[in-house]
Amino acid sequence: MKKAKRTRTATLRPRNAFYAQSGGVTAVINASAAGVIETARRYPRHIGKLYAGRDGIVGALTEDLIDVSAESPATIRGLRYTPAGAFGSARFKLKGLEQNRAEYERLIEVFRAHDIGYFFYNGGNDSMDTAHKVSQIGDALGYPITCIGVPKTVDNDLPLTDCCPGFGSVAKYIAVSTREAALDVASMARTSTKIFVLEVMGRHAGWIAAAGGLAARRDGEAPQIILFPEIAFDRPAFMARVKQSVESLGYCVIVVSEGAKYPDGKFLAEAGTRDAFGHAQLGGVGPVVANMIREELGYKYHWAVADYLQRAARHIASKVDVAQAYAVGKAAVEYAVKGQHSVMPAIIRTSSRPYKWKIEPVPLSAVANVEKKVPREFITADGFGITAACRRYLAPLIAGEDYPPYVDGLPDYVRIKGKAVRRKLKTDFKV
Amino acid sequence: MKKAKRTRTATLRPRNAFYAQSGGVTAVINASAAGVIETARRYPRHIGKLYAGRDGIVGALTEDLIDVSAESPATIRGLRYTPAGAFGSARFKLKGLEQNRAEYERLIEVFRAHDIGYFFYNGGNDSMDTAHKVSQIGDALGYPITCIGVPKTVDNDLPLTDCCPGFGSVAKYIAVSTREAALDVASMARTSTKIFVLEVMGRHAGWIAAAGGLAARRDGEAPQIILFPEIAFDRPAFMARVKQSVESLGYCVIVVSEGAKYPDGKFLAEAGTRDAFGHAQLGGVGPVVANMIREELGYKYHWAVADYLQRAARHIASKVDVAQAYAVGKAAVEYAVKGQHSVMPAIIRTSSRPYKWKIEPVPLSAVANVEKKVPREFITADGFGITAACRRYLAPLIAGEDYPPYVDGLPDYVRIKGKAVRRKLKTDFKV
Repeated sequence: MKKAKRTRTATLRPRNAFYAQSGGVTAVINASAAGVIETARRYPRHIGKLYAGRDGIVGALTEDLIDVSAESPATIRGLRYTPAGAFGSARFKLKGLEQNRAEYERLIEVFRAHDIGYFFYNGGNDSMDTAHKVSQIGDALGYPITCIGVPKTVDNDLPLTDCCPGFGSVAKYIAVSTREAALDVASMARTSTKIFVLEVMGRHAGWIAAAGGLAARRDGEAPQIILFPEIAFDRPAFMARVKQSVESLGYCVIVVSEGAKYPDGKFLAEAGTRDAFGHAQLGGVGPVVANMIREELGYKYHWAVADYLQRAARHIASKVDVAQAYAVGKAAVEYAVKGQHSVMPAIIRTSSRPYKWKIEPVPLSAVANVEKKVPREFITADGFGITAACRRYLAPLIAGEDYPPYVDGLPDYVRIKGKAVRRKLKTDFKV
Repeated sequence: MKKAKRTRTATLRPRNAFYAQSGGVTAVINASAAGVIETARRYPRHIGKLYAGRDGIVGALTEDLIDVSAESPATIRGLRYTPAGAFGSARFKLKGLEQNRAEYERLIEVFRAHDIGYFFYNGGNDSMDTAHKVSQIGDALGYPITCIGVPKTVDNDLPLTDCCPGFGSVAKYIAVSTREAALDVASMARTSTKIFVLEVMGRHAGWIAAAGGLAARRDGEAPQIILFPEIAFDRPAFMARVKQSVESLGYCVIVVSEGAKYPDGKFLAEAGTRDAFGHAQLGGVGPVVANMIREELGYKYHWAVADYLQRAARHIASKVDVAQAYAVGKAAVEYAVKGQHSVMPAIIRTSSRPYKWKIEPVPLSAVANVEKKVPREFITADGFGITAACRRYLAPLIAGEDYPPYVDGLPDYVRIKGKAVRRKLKTDFKV
C-alpha cells in the first residue's frame, strides 16, 4: 500500500486551476469562491496554482488572471460573508464552437500558457452552457481540461438541483422586506397609502416573487397578491382582488415579478433595451402596476423596486444558502481531483421537515440551457398566491441568519488584493 | 417628610393617559411606544389607564381607543423590535384652533369622557405642531391636560434635538444597502451595468441621502455622487462627475434624495399628486436620473427605489436608534409625572468620540414647524458628497446592531390585540 501510494504521488503532476464568476452576482457567490479556494489548497498534489479570471471569463480571454495564492487566508474566509463578485463577474456568453472557434482557441491558448488543467465556472443557466462547451473543447481542440460548473443564480431556475445558491438569500430578503413594508402600509392605510407594490427580480421564473409569499404567517396576511411570470396577467381578476383586499383589510400589498406578462407574452413593463445575452432589460413594472391601480380604482399607492439591493443583501443572507454556496464550491474541487468531468454539484433535498440536503454531481449537458419555472401546483388556483406545497419547498431555504461582522455600524466586507499573474502571451484579444 | 409624602399620595388622583402615533412610521416608533407604556406602568399613582389612539389622532376624534392594559408584557417588550405603527398611525394634521375649533372641542369631549389627563404624541414636524396646539387647548377650552411630544421622524429634521428616533435605522439601512449594491455594480461593470442609482427618502432635508455617504470607507469609494435637496441640481457638473467616475473606476454609484431639485425649485421628479398635508407626493427621481444619464452618456444603468423598505427595515435597525427611541418614550412619561408640560424630550449629544448622549426637555413651541436641513458645511464644496464633519455627526447614529428574534427564517414581529375601550359618547365624528 505504502509503496503504491508513493508511486502515485511521484507520477501525479499537479496542474493549475482557473476559477471564474459569471453572470449576475449574488450575496453568496463569494462563499462558493471560498469553498473552491480553501478546498483547492487542500489538494496540492492535484492542483498547483489557483487563478481567478478578472471579470470572469473575460479575464481568461484577455489573459488577465488573478493570483489567488496572494490572498491571505483571512481574506478568503472573509469571502464567505462578502456579497457580489470579489474577482469580478461578466455577462459574456460564449457562442457555439462552430460559430466562434476563435474564442475557444484563445481560451486554450491562455490555459496552455498557464498550464491550467481545471476549469471551475460559477454561474447560472448561460454559464452552465458555457461550462459545458468548454468541457467539450478538450476533445475538439486536443487540450485536456477538467471542467466543473458551480451553480449560482438568484433566479433559482437551474434544473436537477433542488435549489440554486444565491436564491435562498434573495428569498429571505424579499420575504423579510415584504413583511416589514406590509406592517408599514397596514399601520397607515386608514388615512394614507392603501396600495404597496414591491417589484422583484425573476425574468422568466417566479421563484423570487413566490418567496414574497413567505411573509404571510396565515391566510389573508400580506402579500395579498403575487404576480408571477408563469401566470398570464388577468387585469379584471387582479383589479377585483385589489378592491376586495382594500375593502376588507384597508390595504393591499402586491409582490410583482419583473417578468409579469400579458396573455400575449408582452411584459407589463419593457424598458426596450437588451442586455449582452439579447434578453430584454426590464425594470419598472412596479410603478406600472401601481399606476394602473390608481387609474382604475383611485387608491393612493407607494411602490418599491429593490433591484440590486435584493441580490447583494448579504446582511440578511440565509444561513442555509451560505452553507450550500460554500458546499458546492467545495464539492466542485473534490469532484475535479477525483477525476470527474463536465459535471455540476447539485443540491439534493433528502427531507423537508427537518430539512436535510446533500451534494451530488449531475452532468452539465443535462443542466445547460434548461430553465426550471415555478410549477403550477406551487401557485394557488386563482394565480395570485403560493400553495402549502410551495411553502414547504421554500421555507427551509431562508432558514437561519448568518450575519457578517460589523465595524462602525457597517458590514466589514473584504476586498481582494487582486494581484495580476504575469502574462506569458504576446497576443492580445478583443472581447 | 414621611407625613408630607403620605399626604401627597392621598391627594394625588391618577388620571388616564392617551398615546398616539402620527405621520410616517419608522422601524423604531414602537420602541418609543414601549418606552411610554412600560414607564407609565411604573407610575400608577399618577397614570391610571393608558389608552392608545387607533390610527393615531383619528382614534381620539372618533373615540376609537385601544386599551393598552389588555396587552401582555411580552407584547409590549416585543414592540421594541417590531417596525411600523403597532397602534396605527395617521397623516392627519389639526388646523389652528381658530380655523377648526370643532376638532379641538371633539378632542376635549373624548378626553373628558375618558378622564384623559396626559397626551403623548409620537411624531415629526407636523405632529409636534399638533401636540403644541393641543397643549394650548387646556387654557383655551378650560380642560387641564399635560401634553408631551415624543420625537419621531426618519427625515431627521426636527430642531433642538441632535437627531430624531427613526433616522438612525434608515441611515444604517441606506449605508448598508449602498455598500452592498456598490460591490455588485463594481463586480460587473466591465461588461454590464455602469450606473447604479439609489433613490432615498427625504423630501426637504437630505439627511438620509447623506447617510448613503457612510458606505464609503475612504475617498473614491461608492457612492461617488450624492444629490441633496439642499443643493440645486447642476446638470452639467453632475454629468461631468458621472463620466469621470465611469472613466476612472468603471462605474458610478449615485444616491439621490426624492427631494432633489432644479435651481428653480422644481423637483427632478414630481408625481403630481399631493398627500393629506398638501405636500407633493414624490417618487421616481431614481429612474429619472438614470434615464438622464443614459440619454446623455449612453451608459447602461440600474436603479432602485427603496421606499417603505428603508423606513420599515427593523431587521437592520441601529442599536443606538432603538435605545434613543425607547429613551424618549420613557422620558416623556417621566416629564409628565413630574409636572412638565408642552415639552419634547430631545437627544443631546455630549460627545462624538466616544459617542455619548442624554435626554433633555425642549419646549414644543420651539420645535413645531421648524425644519432642520443638512448644513452647508456637512456637504462637500462640489455639492456631491459629505464632509468629515458630517461623517462625525452621522457615524454614531448607525452604530450597533439590534437584531429582532427570528422564527422560521423571518423576524418574529408582534401584533397587538388592540382591544377597544368601551365608548362613552353617543356622538360620532367624521374625519
